[in-house]
Amino acid sequence: VKLLTLARDLRRRKARERQGLFVAEGVRAVDELLRSTLPVRGVLASRRLAPEARALVGAAAELRSVPVLEVDEREFESAAETDSPQGVLAVAEAPARRLDAIALPAVARLLVLDGVQDPGNVGTILRTAAALGAAATLALPGTVDLWNAKVVRSAMGALFHHQALSCTWEELAAFLDRERVELWGADAAGTPPHEAGERPRRLALAVGNEGAGLSAEARRRVSRLVGLPIAPDVESLNVAVATGILLYELRPTP
Amino acid sequence: VKLLTLARDLRRRKARERQGLFVAEGVRAVDELLRSTLPVRGVLASRRLAPEARALVGAAAELRSVPVLEVDEREFESAAETDSPQGVLAVAEAPARRLDAIALPAVARLLVLDGVQDPGNVGTILRTAAALGAAATLALPGTVDLWNAKVVRSAMGALFHHQALSCTWEELAAFLDRERVELWGADAAGTPPHEAGERPRRLALAVGNEGAGLSAEARRRVSRLVGLPIAPDVESLNVAVATGILLYELRPTP
Repeated sequence: VKLLTLARDLRRRKARERQGLFVAEGVRAVDELLRSTLPVRGVLASRRLAPEARALVGAAAELRSVPVLEVDEREFESAAETDSPQGVLAVAEAPARRLDAIALPAVARLLVLDGVQDPGNVGTILRTAAALGAAATLALPGTVDLWNAKVVRSAMGALFHHQALSCTWEELAAFLDRERVELWGADAAGTPPHEAGERPRRLALAVGNEGAGLSAEARRRVSRLVGLPIAPDVESLNVAVATGILLYELRPTP
Repeated sequence: VKLLTLARDLRRRKARERQGLFVAEGVRAVDELLRSTLPVRGVLASRRLAPEARALVGAAAELRSVPVLEVDEREFESAAETDSPQGVLAVAEAPARRLDAIALPAVARLLVLDGVQDPGNVGTILRTAAALGAAATLALPGTVDLWNAKVVRSAMGALFHHQALSCTWEELAAFLDRERVELWGADAAGTPPHEAGERPRRLALAVGNEGAGLSAEARRRVSRLVGLPIAPDVESLNVAVATGILLYELRPTP
């Protein structure tokens, strides 16, 4: 029952930050979590969890000596944050990642989230950044918490190994300066990537809020704006799709 | 009350197809719909709809002489399909689009959905295809209904003007053959687009199911597989992100 209380508490960002813990919900996320290197405190399973899923999660948990607690459906739902969480969640330790511990290769791409608010978008962006080989994803204030259960779920395991962490503008600026990383920004009116000329060896791309785009602070700090030309009868691309296209277009060329 | 009954009925695909009607939910989708050229039968508003939203939708509806019906919150929820639908929906006529009415320019890109099942993904893909200038999006059997309320909502208005329609493999094959459109398929193991050589003037890209990828039928019919190289510790890209990158990479070059 302690695990149940803990999971309920961890729906609040403050509680997650204070305890250094987060919740992964759904069979896929729990399975990915148990295969990761992160310490897992326990698994909470609803009695209505499908038998095959129960067996899969149970085997993975046993392999790592992680306790599995069965609870009533109603108790489970009182702790779950996402819709249709399939009746399983796990509580784990969030990795203590620090900007100054990130070791960048000579040629690197980074992603900067400047006020992206939809957890599904942020999760998809993290999955995309990891898939396309970004060295890290840095979330600025105004961005949804990276350890929000819906972000964890949409990231499909990417959060467990990709270097994703939150930082302030000051910390980011010091890091980019020290590591000689150039900062570009994504904006619908920016230069198309194929016309943007030579890419810096180390490049960070900042993407902004779903509705408002990049913040004033970001606009002051970027050295260049890149964007994708779109049809006049469409307002915008989805931010995760635009980020994917730009990261791919700006990938290091061999 | 007739509109309420109608909206409830239209949650079923069969009812949508029989009546040639669909439902748009949420302020954004209803507003986009009222700005489109599609005939709108009526707007259903919950009494808890925010006053500014009520005013916005009311003004747009009046401009088009569309009746607005107010109902109790519980009645509204009995008709709404998406989560948090903001208390407003509209019933409209789905355009009667036909493959043989699509006029292709000399250089064209088309998108083919081969069993894409998540409505959010399909909506985002439609928005992306419209934004990147695809001439049409053709949905094969096994793909979620294009007029599902969650697809309509995620498409952000793209469905109202982009040539999106459902067809069979036979209809698609006859159309591609007659219009001299080459069919390529998206597959993680396919050739990266920048190595795929010269693009045909008219090219259709088929994208497959979120888990299983392209169907056996699609694999038989495509002349080439293209795909994006991803990091070894990530299973896949989200299908909407992958579609966006491939469509952009395969865009006609001037």
